[in-house]
Amino acid sequence: MRILITGGAGFLGSHLCDRLLADGHSVIAMDNLITGSTRNIQHLMGREDFRFIKHNVYEYIYIDGPIDAVLNFASPASPSKTAPTGYLQLPIQTMKVGAIGTLNALGVARAKNARFLLASTSEVYGDPLEHPQKETYWGHVDPNGVRSVYDEAKRFAEALTMAYHRTHGVDTRIVRIFNTYGPRMELGDGRVVPNFVGQALRGEPLTVYGDGAQTRSFCYCSDLIDGIVKLLYSNEHDPVNIGNPNELSIKEFAETINRVTGNPGGIQYVADGRTQGDPQQRRPDISRAKTILGWEPKVGLEEGLRETIAYFRTVVPA
Amino acid sequence: MRILITGGAGFLGSHLCDRLLADGHSVIAMDNLITGSTRNIQHLMGREDFRFIKHNVYEYIYIDGPIDAVLNFASPASPSKTAPTGYLQLPIQTMKVGAIGTLNALGVARAKNARFLLASTSEVYGDPLEHPQKETYWGHVDPNGVRSVYDEAKRFAEALTMAYHRTHGVDTRIVRIFNTYGPRMELGDGRVVPNFVGQALRGEPLTVYGDGAQTRSFCYCSDLIDGIVKLLYSNEHDPVNIGNPNELSIKEFAETINRVTGNPGGIQYVADGRTQGDPQQRRPDISRAKTILGWEPKVGLEEGLRETIAYFRTVVPA
Repeated sequence: MRILITGGAGFLGSHLCDRLLADGHSVIAMDNLITGSTRNIQHLMGREDFRFIKHNVYEYIYIDGPIDAVLNFASPASPSKTAPTGYLQLPIQTMKVGAIGTLNALGVARAKNARFLLASTSEVYGDPLEHPQKETYWGHVDPNGVRSVYDEAKRFAEALTMAYHRTHGVDTRIVRIFNTYGPRMELGDGRVVPNFVGQALRGEPLTVYGDGAQTRSFCYCSDLIDGIVKLLYSNEHDPVNIGNPNELSIKEFAETINRVTGNPGGIQYVADGRTQGDPQQRRPDISRAKTILGWEPKVGLEEGLRETIAYFRTVVPA
Repeated sequence: MRILITGGAGFLGSHLCDRLLADGHSVIAMDNLITGSTRNIQHLMGREDFRFIKHNVYEYIYIDGPIDAVLNFASPASPSKTAPTGYLQLPIQTMKVGAIGTLNALGVARAKNARFLLASTSEVYGDPLEHPQKETYWGHVDPNGVRSVYDEAKRFAEALTMAYHRTHGVDTRIVRIFNTYGPRMELGDGRVVPNFVGQALRGEPLTVYGDGAQTRSFCYCSDLIDGIVKLLYSNEHDPVNIGNPNELSIKEFAETINRVTGNPGGIQYVADGRTQGDPQQRRPDISRAKTILGWEPKVGLEEGLRETIAYFRTVVPA
């Protein structure tokens, strides 16, 4: 297949490039480089089967020749209150890429008769009242809160994707991505994994907001990419959760990182500086992915963290 | 003030034109006439203080000269499964006008330093689990259901409006409009009031889906417009419910229409043909409107229905 990946220079987009090239496909990565980086795809530059186009997907997308699949991964994705690449610092761009970017990408899929895969998110569940979250759960999202620029943009993108499927028969898929970590996360993007690993590699105490009892379920990126590719190759139109149901508290997570890195810095608990609307708990129900795709995560936390830490050692100033 | 009203040839938009002209303002009505009609504003044509522009608001909006307020009312709004002007027949247009139309209208407000008022909807509450609905309720909306093209577009529009307020300081307001009825509703738009009144005036039985126990709260249009204008003149940025909390069942409503029209046709109950996701119950909590705007509805149901029926007598073929 000849595959267009929007956000192809981002954390997940670039791993998708690698995987789909390895599967024998030809890949066009499109990215405006606001949150993505050519560093993530520089090893692919010059390949015959790879092309990079710097482009803002909320401007009209023109691609020469046939396209067999469009993977819509362009968006800021970090909920950090302070990181310049977080969606709270890019609120209107985040809403434009979620709505108009998705519309343009769906337009390419429709024009080229290509299949379309939307990168949605566990954030469509908001601060969930149901645990773990099944795909049938409608979510609990504040339509006006500061995080709504991301959550509502993704909910809109899902609705638009289904509208193109129902109205124009576009062959769509929707993946709801839960917290993922791995190499190529941005060190400064404010998410918990780069924050913790950066601090650990500098020998500093890890900053935990509140008491650290809030839980997360972290999926290693190769597992996640495998689930996404299985969904792409499947025939499933309804949303599918892809994530790791192994839930642990932020405190346990910090302790694991300190153990794996041998960081003596410990943990520093600080008054709750989390973003308003930051969910207290979130864990995917992956029954559908298991049944429909035969997928489940395989990489254990310590193994994934060792790979991630090895990457961050190459980018953290000593 | 010089005021731009998108959707100005629609049911509510045209009543807003009348009211704001009566208040001494100058009005530009913009409409693509997909669901609106020049019939609703023909009595204003030729006035010095009124201008109509036929334009699709999801294309770039250019307006010459100063604008002091933008009222964003463009959207299909009928949930009918069959009416050609219902949003289920116009799914992608509905999502485009909700997202890109609102973006363009916010752009005008920002460029002209004008205040902005978004017509949002009780549909942001979806099929609510809380009764009556307060503005703080986050709603219960299926992000993928067939009605999501409207519900999620309006939630997106609210989030975008708050993003423009927070990011660019645009002086915004958000009204959540509950079921409204009155003259200039489209006879064929599939909503319950034109359906019932049309049947009553033709002497037919009124078609009630299911057992008619599902409830609605109907607000007469002059009350609603009064609430919207009070909000426009206020300084309130958070969403405000405007609607009539007087809840009654569809069955009671049908009986009232038969009584006021003297229709001997009675009621015909048919198997549930309601749109998937049609809420069973919805009633506004209007405490905020009462407190902040000093507003509450004044027109009783029979009085409002008499006005509405008088209008429909002029458009229903005898």
